[in-house]
Amino acid sequence: MHITFCCADTRPEPWLEGLRNALPGATVSEWHPGDAQADHAVVWSPPQQFLDEQPGLRGLFNIGAGVDALLRLKLPPDTKVVRLDDAGMSVQMAEYVCHAVIRHFREFDGYEADMAEGRWSFRKPRSRAEFPVGVMGLGVLGERVARALRQFEFPVHGWSRSARVVEGVHGHVGVAEFDGFLNACRVLVNLLPLTPDTRDILNRHTLSRLQRGGYLINVARGAHLVDEDLLALLDSGHLAGATLDVFRTEPLPREHAFWGQPKIVLTPHTSARTLREESIAQIAGKIQAMERGEPIAGVVDPVRGY
Amino acid sequence: MHITFCCADTRPEPWLEGLRNALPGATVSEWHPGDAQADHAVVWSPPQQFLDEQPGLRGLFNIGAGVDALLRLKLPPDTKVVRLDDAGMSVQMAEYVCHAVIRHFREFDGYEADMAEGRWSFRKPRSRAEFPVGVMGLGVLGERVARALRQFEFPVHGWSRSARVVEGVHGHVGVAEFDGFLNACRVLVNLLPLTPDTRDILNRHTLSRLQRGGYLINVARGAHLVDEDLLALLDSGHLAGATLDVFRTEPLPREHAFWGQPKIVLTPHTSARTLREESIAQIAGKIQAMERGEPIAGVVDPVRGY
Repeated sequence: MHITFCCADTRPEPWLEGLRNALPGATVSEWHPGDAQADHAVVWSPPQQFLDEQPGLRGLFNIGAGVDALLRLKLPPDTKVVRLDDAGMSVQMAEYVCHAVIRHFREFDGYEADMAEGRWSFRKPRSRAEFPVGVMGLGVLGERVARALRQFEFPVHGWSRSARVVEGVHGHVGVAEFDGFLNACRVLVNLLPLTPDTRDILNRHTLSRLQRGGYLINVARGAHLVDEDLLALLDSGHLAGATLDVFRTEPLPREHAFWGQPKIVLTPHTSARTLREESIAQIAGKIQAMERGEPIAGVVDPVRGY
Repeated sequence: MHITFCCADTRPEPWLEGLRNALPGATVSEWHPGDAQADHAVVWSPPQQFLDEQPGLRGLFNIGAGVDALLRLKLPPDTKVVRLDDAGMSVQMAEYVCHAVIRHFREFDGYEADMAEGRWSFRKPRSRAEFPVGVMGLGVLGERVARALRQFEFPVHGWSRSARVVEGVHGHVGVAEFDGFLNACRVLVNLLPLTPDTRDILNRHTLSRLQRGGYLINVARGAHLVDEDLLALLDSGHLAGATLDVFRTEPLPREHAFWGQPKIVLTPHTSARTLREESIAQIAGKIQAMERGEPIAGVVDPVRGY
């Protein structure tokens, strides 16, 4: 069995070594144009040429949760596209989102500004009932995030394409219930996959349905958000702030209006990083299962887009 | 039945009204010197004169979790001292501590400094295994904090005077196991009651046992910490930082060395605030139970000190 590795922005050596250790029967190498046909591929943003030269792949393993970049390419018809599920990402996402929600709810920035000026300040505690949080997307990551927020006793709403039951979370399903979901929330957390249906879904129309003093946390993809609509709603005061980890262009271009916006917390796409060891173990396990003819989790439906 | 209210730094009207609504058979009034004997008292830092004039109190209800200020006074011998248990404080404490731990673990301050300079930076993800967190004190608040930290998959150690079993938490008990507990931890969260045994417990000797790059979160009482020992260990680099919510003197005096220390995050004793409605409901319920001769939770052992 031969496994080829073709990942942009990733140092190949530790991945090759890890995959060799996890799959002792396989040969593993970095892909170069003209290479012989492989059985499986481990990829991140591969070029179209790679896919054109590897029509016989059985498995195409994406080293991330979002496969939007991969699905924009022309894929071999019989290849299974497999995303990473969890592999240490859901706990990071729960951490990142809870940190952002608590920071905003507890007004820690305000306290810190006061303390920086030597001021011992008092703020009236806010009521949790006035901070309902909505989670868009209830897959592996979204469900974990919703459960973590429930632990801190926030009212939590979830919105998903098909009905998902998460204990203690008010479920809203599909396009028909989207406006009701937005109206019910003050903080909005985006964890949707990026598909033609969800591109630009965070816009002036949808964000203005959030409760006044709303807050946006985008940890999915930059193309979900219409940047200038967010800025306009922050200017008008309808939204109180935002935490953004993903952007239409990354790194965020120097001239972008998000830089230096006091109401926006920016992080450099760090909310849930691919952890090499966990990912190698998961991918190796799935390759072995596929080779034994067993079903595996995380196979992408290219029509649905995730 | 008469209930008297004697709370420093607290506007009495909403408490009096809330207690009257919750206990329609009782008279409720703010204490003044020379007042007639009451059956129960709701207090925060009352003067000695109050206790001297009210020797017949059946219940003395403290509107906070820590009773150290009350136990420094001479108390009537037959009065039950009752602390607030939880009443909406444990979730606030879990929030505060998880926010502080995640902020430090995920290096959000570093990212934010980079982004403030327009720099899109990369940091190697840290391993959770290298961030064991120790919780000192496993009462209502400490247990809730330990459980919340476990949800984020940190290794969690607990230290308590008597053995306490919390699922997923490595328990350490008593003086004999204190050094082992400290050695096992990189982040230390203090939630102990302040007693003669625990005063100054966070000092050069104990804090230097934490793993290198350690971090202190003090949310109990300022007198647990020897301030200059913390500063020395931050200077030496053995500790990487601290989050402090409580201080020996509050408000923190203007000339104190903690102000403007870049490695210390300061908040103005806001980690777990007394929530009026929850507290009134809890105290009223306990008064009713006591009057029916039933046992109640939160009765303080004056010898043990909590």
